[in-house]
Amino acid sequence: MTFEQFMEHYKQEIEHCMAQAIVATEAEQKLEQSMIYSLEAGGKRIRPLLVLATLVAFGSEPVLGYQTAAAMEMIHTYSLIHDDLPAMDNDDYRRGKLTNHKVYGDATAILAGDALLTKAFELIVMDDQLAATVKVELVQLFATSAGADGMVGGQQADILGENQKLTLEELESIHRRKTGALLTASVLSGAIIAGASEQEQDILREFSHHIGIAFQICDDILDVIGDSEKMGKKTGSDIDLHKSTYPALLTLEGAKKALTEHTEKAEQALANLDIDATYLLGLTELIAVREF
Amino acid sequence: MTFEQFMEHYKQEIEHCMAQAIVATEAEQKLEQSMIYSLEAGGKRIRPLLVLATLVAFGSEPVLGYQTAAAMEMIHTYSLIHDDLPAMDNDDYRRGKLTNHKVYGDATAILAGDALLTKAFELIVMDDQLAATVKVELVQLFATSAGADGMVGGQQADILGENQKLTLEELESIHRRKTGALLTASVLSGAIIAGASEQEQDILREFSHHIGIAFQICDDILDVIGDSEKMGKKTGSDIDLHKSTYPALLTLEGAKKALTEHTEKAEQALANLDIDATYLLGLTELIAVREF
Repeated sequence: MTFEQFMEHYKQEIEHCMAQAIVATEAEQKLEQSMIYSLEAGGKRIRPLLVLATLVAFGSEPVLGYQTAAAMEMIHTYSLIHDDLPAMDNDDYRRGKLTNHKVYGDATAILAGDALLTKAFELIVMDDQLAATVKVELVQLFATSAGADGMVGGQQADILGENQKLTLEELESIHRRKTGALLTASVLSGAIIAGASEQEQDILREFSHHIGIAFQICDDILDVIGDSEKMGKKTGSDIDLHKSTYPALLTLEGAKKALTEHTEKAEQALANLDIDATYLLGLTELIAVREF
Repeated sequence: MTFEQFMEHYKQEIEHCMAQAIVATEAEQKLEQSMIYSLEAGGKRIRPLLVLATLVAFGSEPVLGYQTAAAMEMIHTYSLIHDDLPAMDNDDYRRGKLTNHKVYGDATAILAGDALLTKAFELIVMDDQLAATVKVELVQLFATSAGADGMVGGQQADILGENQKLTLEELESIHRRKTGALLTASVLSGAIIAGASEQEQDILREFSHHIGIAFQICDDILDVIGDSEKMGKKTGSDIDLHKSTYPALLTLEGAKKALTEHTEKAEQALANLDIDATYLLGLTELIAVREF
C-alpha cells in the first residue's frame, strides 16, 4: 500500500469508527449533531494516522488502533471547539466551515466539547481487542497529554502569553504542550498497543518532539504568508492577537531553517529504530513540508 | 464511627486527595489556582462520600476508594464550572462564593473544567491499589455517566427544556441524566471496587435512582422556598429561566409527597441487601431531608 493509499484508506476507517461511536450514543439530537459536525469538519487526521502508522511500523495490525485513533481525534476535535469559543480565540471559521458555536451556539459547543473528551476515554476502555493493562496505560497517556500537564496547560500558557514578548524557550514550552503533547501521545499510543520497548518509546518521543515543533513552525509560517482561502480560516490572526511566533522571533528565513532542522532530526530519530518507517516518514513530510 | 464522624473524617481525606492531585500537576499557576478554587469551594461532598459509604457497606476499606471518590468530585466540580458560565446558566455566585469565571475569566474557567474532567480519569488509572480490570470498569462507568449519554446529555436537555412546559416524564429523564447519573456512578463505583455482584449492583442502581430524584425534588423545593443566604446562590432562578420543576408540575405539597415516596423506596432497596447500610442511610437522609 502506498502512503497515499494508506492515508486514504485509514482516514475512512477512523472516520467510520468515530461516526459509529456517536451513532451508538443516546443523547439529544442537537448535541449529537454538534459533535458530528466538528468530527466531520475534516482535516488531515494527522494524529489518528500517527497512531496507525506507528502500529504498522512495528508490524502490528492497524485495526488494533482504530478506537484509540478515533479517541485521539475526538480529543483534538474537542480542543478545537473550545479554542474557537468567543471566550477563547473567538474564531468564526475553521477549515472553511463555520465554527461549532457559530452553528449550534456557545452552550452546545461547550457541551459537545465536554462530551467528545469524555467519549474518548470511553472508546479506549471499550476496545475489546486490548488487554486491561494496555487500556490503563493508554488512558493515563491520554489524560496526562490532554490535561493540565499537557494540552490544556499549553492553551492556558498561550492565552497568558498574548501581548507578551516571549523567548524562543517560552514559545517552545507552550507549543510542546499545546500541540506537541497530543502528537507525542498519538505516536506513543501506537507504540504501547504494538508492545514497543521503553527504549523504543524514548526514541519515538524524540521523533515526536521534533515533528511537534516542525508542525508549529509550519503553522506560524502559514499564518504569515498563507492565503486565507487555502487555510480555510482567517490568516494573520496571530498578529492581530500580538502572539509571539517563530517567524517573529527568528525571521521568516530563520523559521524555515529551523523547520528543516527539526524535520531532519525527526527523520534521524526514526533511523535509529529497527522498524518499517515508511508511513511515519510520509506523515513527517506532510506535517513539515506544506506549500509556501 | 458515627455518621457525623464518618462525614467529617472522610470529607477531609477526599479534600486532601484532590489537593494532592493538583499540587502534583505542572501547569500555569493561574490554571491550578482556578482548579483549586472550585475544588475548595466546599459543598457536602455527597458523591465522593457515596463512593466511600458503599465501600464500607460491603466491608471494604475506604482508602481503596479515595482516588475514585476524588475523581468523582472533580467531575462534579468541572460540571458546575461549565454550567455557571455566561453561555450556560450565567451564575455569579455558587455556595456563597463568586463563580469560577467571575474570578478567573471565562477562558480559564473553561480550561479549568476541561482539566478537572481529564484529571479525573488520570486519578482513577493511577491508583496503585486497584487491579487494571477494575480501573477499566471504573473509567467506563465514569465516562458513560458523565458524557453525552449521561450528565452532559442531561445538561443539553435541560437547556433545550427551558421555556417549555415539560411532562413529569420529560423532567425525570433530564434529571436522571443531569444529576442522577453521577450519583448512581458514585454508588456503583464503590460497589465495583468492593467486588459487589451484578445482582447487588442492580439493587444499588434502584437505590441510586430514587435518591437521584429525591435530590432533585429537594433542590427544586429549595429554589422555591429557600432563602438565598442559606443556599449561597440566587434562588428563584429556575422561575427566571422558566424551567419546569417538580413543585410547578406537582404543586409544593405534591413535590414534598413525592420526595417522601422516593426516599422510602431508596431505603427499601437498601433493606434488600445484606450490607451495613448505616452510612448510606445517613447520606440518603442528608440528600432528602433538608430544612424547609
